[in-house]
Amino acid sequence: MILAVVVCVLAFSKAAVALDNGLMRTPPMGWLAWERFRCDIDCDNDPKNCISENLFRDMADRLAEDGWKELGYVYVNIDDCWSSMDRDNNGRLQPDPKRFPGGIANLARYLHDRGLKLGIYGDLGTHTCGGYPGTTLDKIQTDAQTFADWGVDMLKLDGCYSNASYQEQGYPLMTKALNATGRPIGYSCSWPAYQGGLPPKVNYTLLGEICNLWRNYGDIQDSWDSVLNIIDWFFDNQDVLQPAAGPGRWNDPDMLIIGDFGLSLDQSRTQMALWAVMAAPLFMSNDLRTLDSSARAILQNRGAIAINQDPMGIQGRRLLKEKNGIEVFWRPLSGSASALVFFSRRDDMPFRYQTSLKQLNYTTGVYEIYDVFIEKPMPTLKDTTEFVVSVNPSGVVMWYVKEAESAHFSEKLQGPLLHRYNDRSGSRILL
Amino acid sequence: MILAVVVCVLAFSKAAVALDNGLMRTPPMGWLAWERFRCDIDCDNDPKNCISENLFRDMADRLAEDGWKELGYVYVNIDDCWSSMDRDNNGRLQPDPKRFPGGIANLARYLHDRGLKLGIYGDLGTHTCGGYPGTTLDKIQTDAQTFADWGVDMLKLDGCYSNASYQEQGYPLMTKALNATGRPIGYSCSWPAYQGGLPPKVNYTLLGEICNLWRNYGDIQDSWDSVLNIIDWFFDNQDVLQPAAGPGRWNDPDMLIIGDFGLSLDQSRTQMALWAVMAAPLFMSNDLRTLDSSARAILQNRGAIAINQDPMGIQGRRLLKEKNGIEVFWRPLSGSASALVFFSRRDDMPFRYQTSLKQLNYTTGVYEIYDVFIEKPMPTLKDTTEFVVSVNPSGVVMWYVKEAESAHFSEKLQGPLLHRYNDRSGSRILL
Repeated sequence: MILAVVVCVLAFSKAAVALDNGLMRTPPMGWLAWERFRCDIDCDNDPKNCISENLFRDMADRLAEDGWKELGYVYVNIDDCWSSMDRDNNGRLQPDPKRFPGGIANLARYLHDRGLKLGIYGDLGTHTCGGYPGTTLDKIQTDAQTFADWGVDMLKLDGCYSNASYQEQGYPLMTKALNATGRPIGYSCSWPAYQGGLPPKVNYTLLGEICNLWRNYGDIQDSWDSVLNIIDWFFDNQDVLQPAAGPGRWNDPDMLIIGDFGLSLDQSRTQMALWAVMAAPLFMSNDLRTLDSSARAILQNRGAIAINQDPMGIQGRRLLKEKNGIEVFWRPLSGSASALVFFSRRDDMPFRYQTSLKQLNYTTGVYEIYDVFIEKPMPTLKDTTEFVVSVNPSGVVMWYVKEAESAHFSEKLQGPLLHRYNDRSGSRILL
Repeated sequence: MILAVVVCVLAFSKAAVALDNGLMRTPPMGWLAWERFRCDIDCDNDPKNCISENLFRDMADRLAEDGWKELGYVYVNIDDCWSSMDRDNNGRLQPDPKRFPGGIANLARYLHDRGLKLGIYGDLGTHTCGGYPGTTLDKIQTDAQTFADWGVDMLKLDGCYSNASYQEQGYPLMTKALNATGRPIGYSCSWPAYQGGLPPKVNYTLLGEICNLWRNYGDIQDSWDSVLNIIDWFFDNQDVLQPAAGPGRWNDPDMLIIGDFGLSLDQSRTQMALWAVMAAPLFMSNDLRTLDSSARAILQNRGAIAINQDPMGIQGRRLLKEKNGIEVFWRPLSGSASALVFFSRRDDMPFRYQTSLKQLNYTTGVYEIYDVFIEKPMPTLKDTTEFVVSVNPSGVVMWYVKEAESAHFSEKLQGPLLHRYNDRSGSRILL
């Protein structure tokens, strides 16, 4: 009998519950509270950093006023610990009254007035990971409607305090419930992360139908070890993960921690480059009020963002893992272009890596190269030309590569990648 | 018979071969090539970074012109891979003729003319770690005299390609040979690092008599993992190591990698703070030509340098290792002062650590506090006053602490710590 119910739910979810919000044709971008601000609810002693409407308004002000919004960073996302410990008399979630005295609807208006969007957090289970009220199966419809009524634009549905079969029922039910509200609400599912992230436990075809994005793996922490661990997991499993992504459905390796405390500048560029290659959602979790200029420059790098937001939405892959510690990543982009990332796992000194585009599977031809972090074009390369890139320890060199015959690079390349295009000094290519 | 020789050598070395150069009454400071430039001898393809006289002149220029020398950073130290593969006809070491066409004596003059000192590298054994000619027992006197003739001011004697008994003979013999030259040459011994760094294999009393500094542990690499591993080893073994240090004899946890590729700003402050607490030699291994301003500010921090260079020369200790990931370090300083470092091993968000000076073993009294990296005084603290410091993930808060009764702080505190003393804003103490 129980089995019959599960089978029935499964069949139902696959056939009838495709997410129909039309959102996130490119990876969503914005800001998410968790990694940087966690469950800090101590507004008495830590008023600037506690989870409160003031924090989200502060971040919204920064996104709107400091050039983020124009680049695509429009989501301001609440994570755990926002709610009251009790539902209201009608069984609805309600925000903590002391920390969100204006309520969530007010906060959503504040964001919408500034051209931003509001994300909120729920948990499919008895409690959220932080111990706040969870969304049990019987509450899915109520909570979806509450979020819609508030004007919420995105939901991250975590999976603490539930189990595999509960999740198998609940995540598709939330899809249906969100559809039913009529409000387009982006849907981030933590489901696969709770099931190990890999088939057969995880069905990426189904996820692509019911969620806009999904957390495949564990939470990021503020350390290079954590970033490296995530990079390795995603690319070690690229044969499974890469085909799952596309417009409207994205693998989510978790937040950008650039601008926090644990990454060097080179490591920050590496996270930005590889999240762009992975077509990953770009949710910063940092303090936008105190971000320094070098972190800002990386997060606002127009080339990296353009690569991340490529309209084809094809996730990239690791091409090579060399014994010398160099790894090469590649992502196909629209307009016969591609992104190449040379990454060094070394911890000694900049490594001079020699190769050619032909060795990286490029077809016969001449290619124009733009260095994303130097923000300058490099000399043109024939596919057979041997070149050397100098890659810093734990750092990257990131290139935007475009065939030169089909279109003259400096005339046809459009938009952000043309930024500072006309300066040919500072080449990192050495023949 | 062999045993008899060893015993004889040991007795001789302990009794008669105390180093008599009078140098390094405070930990030596300067620059050392290894971590950043390794054994890069490819001057054809990498002319700016290869081990050559040009590299050392470049660094000397920077030390002399960019404010380093005045702060105490005076040594410019060559590491491995400087020499020719063959000794000269008289059995003397000679530099690679292509990379050091002017010779070492010329390079020493170039440095001396700028108020700097030259360090060189040798290896007690058949070969250096990089495969260049080593200093075998029969060559110790020759090499010491060659270095003295060239005007060298410091020798790092590595220990590749030898063994325990060879080292037991060789390191004291080099002490004797350096003494015999009549030139004061600072002597850095890698001996203990090759013997595990701990008694009974390592005799720190003997080392304190024959070497000015010694590498206790493995080489540092350009990563936070490496720095953390070194910090842990030195403080886990502080009962053995701390008493070994003093004026003229220092434990050496290896180079500062601040300004390279692997450390965040917070991690860079942590290395600077804990190297200061350890009374460690401050040899930067970075590219002073391209150092950014934030790394420079940390390396040139006057408070941290003053603490490192405290004339009492007492190495500091770890006081506490809290379950919450906070560790507290302490170093006694001259003038009834001390240094306190609060370090966070966490990887989430700034941690608000509450304590009092009394809980950190301070005696009854009122204390003036100067925050070394904020470069500002904090409010005065009674020993019993509970305070909260906010410590960043992988970062530190470093205080210079001085009794307030014995001398009015702002009048009597002399020298670099008075720098920017009169601004009381920006307090990190919250009651």
